Amino acid sequence: MSKLKFDITMSLDGFIAGPNPGPEAPLGEGGERLHQWVYGLRSFEERHGRGGGETNRDDEIAEEALANTGAVIMGRGMFGAGPGPWDEAWEGWWGDEPPFGVPVFVLTHHAREPVAMKGGTTFTFVTEGIESALEQARAAAGGKDVAIAGGGRVVQQYLDAGLLDEFQVHVAPVLFGDGVRLFEQPGAVQIELDPVSLLSQVERRARRTGGSGSPFTVC
Amino acid sequence: MSKLKFDITMSLDGFIAGPNPGPEAPLGEGGERLHQWVYGLRSFEERHGRGGGETNRDDEIAEEALANTGAVIMGRGMFGAGPGPWDEAWEGWWGDEPPFGVPVFVLTHHAREPVAMKGGTTFTFVTEGIESALEQARAAAGGKDVAIAGGGRVVQQYLDAGLLDEFQVHVAPVLFGDGVRLFEQPGAVQIELDPVSLLSQVERRARRTGGSGSPFTVC
Repeated sequence: MSKLKFDITMSLDGFIAGPNPGPEAPLGEGGERLHQWVYGLRSFEERHGRGGGETNRDDEIAEEALANTGAVIMGRGMFGAGPGPWDEAWEGWWGDEPPFGVPVFVLTHHAREPVAMKGGTTFTFVTEGIESALEQARAAAGGKDVAIAGGGRVVQQYLDAGLLDEFQVHVAPVLFGDGVRLFEQPGAVQIELDPVSLLSQVERRARRTGGSGSPFTVC
Repeated sequence: MSKLKFDITMSLDGFIAGPNPGPEAPLGEGGERLHQWVYGLRSFEERHGRGGGETNRDDEIAEEALANTGAVIMGRGMFGAGPGPWDEAWEGWWGDEPPFGVPVFVLTHHAREPVAMKGGTTFTFVTEGIESALEQARAAAGGKDVAIAGGGRVVQQYLDAGLLDEFQVHVAPVLFGDGVRLFEQPGAVQIELDPVSLLSQVERRARRTGGSGSPFTVC
């Protein structure tokens, strides 16, 4: 059964990017501190066209999070070069061969022809809203899951619409104080979650990274 | 060594109370969903002057969180009947015998004589700021720890001042969408935490409460 899911790393105070994200710093100021736990893992290195990397429990978790994903949905903010009409030269942050390797559907108010990249990633621009994007992504996923890559507003829209099946949040032991929140929707429906599992990486992480890794994952 | 600490239950989206907290609903709308995991535990029942209650791992965690606490600091918002000059008839939300059982220091802009309650709780009103409150609480704690009871703004002030030694956050598997945040301080200093431990209660909780309990505790 194809699920709609997301897998995102959040600071303990709820942020998925630091303050002032932009072309120079897509994750915002200090935002890369969230993702320390994936840098250098084999799955991360491989996905970015490099060899080597560590194989450990973190690597398995990172790999599992991406497994069985047949299509991706993201917001215009995450794809970049927005808001406003397209600069057609912009093909995302990720170079010629983006790490998705599957069809990616970008939610936008500005129509644009699809862009095919190396390695199986195609960017299709959807102007008809979240339900249309999900329908197109499901069709493209060939029975696999559809993953929301971000940002927070897109996640929140799918949550509020009751369309999300499952998600996994990696909570990084950092406090940002400011930035882009994962969950921020005053007036949103109150939602009860059904915990599936929790993974603790505290001790090893604290040793390896001096406390800047991902202490736990809840899905 | 006496520590300054706090122990608070937060929703996955960062709230420690629901929307519109007030005299009728001190935890805000739906806020009691955060604390499902402590209701009915022996330590909770005992602290509220009742016998019985469950003894299990949750009860141990709730008990440990309160152990070795010699004094408490809270904000005026949490003590209630604010803001503004005091209604001297107001002695907190907790009845004649509040569940603290130790000296409590209330941060306020409005001076007031101390109030002694049954069971060892005294409320002392501090108008000289957070450092004075901490100094007074430390002196009263007799070598034990000082706990910040809340709310979020008080926690954030001690965090920003670098005075906090340790904290424990219980993350409840609910999304509030709106309410009172634990961490909300645009422009706050970015802080790296040093994970101490993580406790998972997912499976048992999910069975017992249908998913509304505390899935994990990070301290």
